[in-house]
Amino acid sequence: MQTILSGIKPSGTPHLGNYLGMLKPSLELMKRPQTRCFYFMADIHALNTIQNRELLRQYTYEAAAAWIALGLDPHQAILYRESDIPEISELNSLLAHAVPKSLMNQAHAYKAITQKNQEAGNEDLDDGVNMGLFNYPILMSADILAFDTDFVPVGKDQVQHLEITRDIARRFNVRHGECLKLPQVIVKEEVAVIPGLDGRKMSKSYENIIALFQPEKEMLKCINRIVTDTSPPEAPKDPDSSSLFAIYQGFAAKDQIEEMRAHYAKGIGWGQMKKELFEVIRSALGDAYKIYQELMSHPEELDRIFNEGAKKARAIARPIVDRARNAVGF
Amino acid sequence: MQTILSGIKPSGTPHLGNYLGMLKPSLELMKRPQTRCFYFMADIHALNTIQNRELLRQYTYEAAAAWIALGLDPHQAILYRESDIPEISELNSLLAHAVPKSLMNQAHAYKAITQKNQEAGNEDLDDGVNMGLFNYPILMSADILAFDTDFVPVGKDQVQHLEITRDIARRFNVRHGECLKLPQVIVKEEVAVIPGLDGRKMSKSYENIIALFQPEKEMLKCINRIVTDTSPPEAPKDPDSSSLFAIYQGFAAKDQIEEMRAHYAKGIGWGQMKKELFEVIRSALGDAYKIYQELMSHPEELDRIFNEGAKKARAIARPIVDRARNAVGF
Repeated sequence: MQTILSGIKPSGTPHLGNYLGMLKPSLELMKRPQTRCFYFMADIHALNTIQNRELLRQYTYEAAAAWIALGLDPHQAILYRESDIPEISELNSLLAHAVPKSLMNQAHAYKAITQKNQEAGNEDLDDGVNMGLFNYPILMSADILAFDTDFVPVGKDQVQHLEITRDIARRFNVRHGECLKLPQVIVKEEVAVIPGLDGRKMSKSYENIIALFQPEKEMLKCINRIVTDTSPPEAPKDPDSSSLFAIYQGFAAKDQIEEMRAHYAKGIGWGQMKKELFEVIRSALGDAYKIYQELMSHPEELDRIFNEGAKKARAIARPIVDRARNAVGF
Repeated sequence: MQTILSGIKPSGTPHLGNYLGMLKPSLELMKRPQTRCFYFMADIHALNTIQNRELLRQYTYEAAAAWIALGLDPHQAILYRESDIPEISELNSLLAHAVPKSLMNQAHAYKAITQKNQEAGNEDLDDGVNMGLFNYPILMSADILAFDTDFVPVGKDQVQHLEITRDIARRFNVRHGECLKLPQVIVKEEVAVIPGLDGRKMSKSYENIIALFQPEKEMLKCINRIVTDTSPPEAPKDPDSSSLFAIYQGFAAKDQIEEMRAHYAKGIGWGQMKKELFEVIRSALGDAYKIYQELMSHPEELDRIFNEGAKKARAIARPIVDRARNAVGF
């Protein structure tokens, strides 16, 4: 039996980019044989950016509802909120002494901000950095190590943080005896950047997202707002510079994609293409919106699922964290 | 009812310097009316320097046994190990996002090391800094804030760290509503530096300590090893440059001290003075060594006391930490 762990930071309403980049690939993992899957809402991490309690709750429910609506079976997988597992925080406190500060100074997420400050001519390189962000690779390590995780699927940008986790586990084991399991990284296939309504990368901060869960009419309206050029329907078009095609690729089957390339070459009207895009999205999502809406209108049911998940997760984490506590002398 | 909290880092065998600087003053606080006293072994903090599990356990027992032997009543006060209270770690994780990194960059304990590195010409200013040390003011804040602490007695060198705690609580409250109680500092009277066997400050790292708990014969032998000059018994002596007198002052009553000053002026033999010193220490400690030894030979009794203390402390911390969890949106 092998353990795979995926986390999602509940910091915005799920959109098509999240679906293709994170939600769908993480659910594929459930199909592996002999695998125990953990899915968690990284709500402690989310505090670094979301400081509105209603919003944090909303996003946390939305993230869980999204996973379930898309096929996560909470009886089979273990679904929980990071903040419901005190064992993660215990391990977080316990790991710190084994982490040289120089390791954190090198973490990508932190360096990205100091670099931005430097480029902006800001003398205070730490401007805007809170300790949640600076410590984030340690808490991420606790998230992973508390469950003897075998595999963590991450995007390329997260590979370094997982290397830090392995490094921390190694240092802890050297000091206190073999007791933390070193996780292995599964580097997720690079998903093409999903453009948003304005053609830039789909992102909450650009306000150009297409929400993953919305009534079909709204979804169609939204798709119709994706910007296109003014070329006439009959003009041949380049699929690889087309936002519509980029999103289409994420949802359509291989043969559909090939067919669509041919359409582009011959000339396809943008209105027609938008309808086609809507259809592949609708077909990929199936009943998901209905299930999602049902869950979101019954948060008490989601709370029940969180409580069940927390119970299962804590039962697994407790002996692992106790092993670490014992190793250091507690 | 007001809450006072004292912590001790179990990182060495208690010696006369600890007694005068920390153990005795912290026990005085129990005499305040309408006061609930918390005493804890800061064993998570201790990990930053002690990475030998047997030693950490030993020192933790020794610290608790010392407090009890010197008069702490575990039925009246709440005595516990920091690591036994998951609520402290939960709050530790929860506070991080409200702490600007710049605040940690300024913490004395951290700056002391970077300064040392700088003076040594070490280009890596963070050399030897682990994240337990860098985060230490955050964990210290969690130690304090988890109990709605009213007062924290600290030495002058710790006043800044307590200011940081107040600052963190303030920032958290601004973001999430009034929910953490700002502690007030009690600055402990400056205790004169207690010299060790060699005349330098008594400190584990100088290997010049006089253990607080040892058989009387051993204690006397130890006192006889305190270095003195070669002046003859009858020569007048300066009490203020005498190690023996400095320690004597910590244990003797006011009138005894005045009397001893007179003896010094008239001339007193070092052998005589050592006997006098031994007597005031013996009289101050009373039965403490016997109680201490009894406790140390029954660690299971200390474990029972820790478990009782943890139960009481957790019952108090739980609703406070839940209040903070609720405030952020968990």
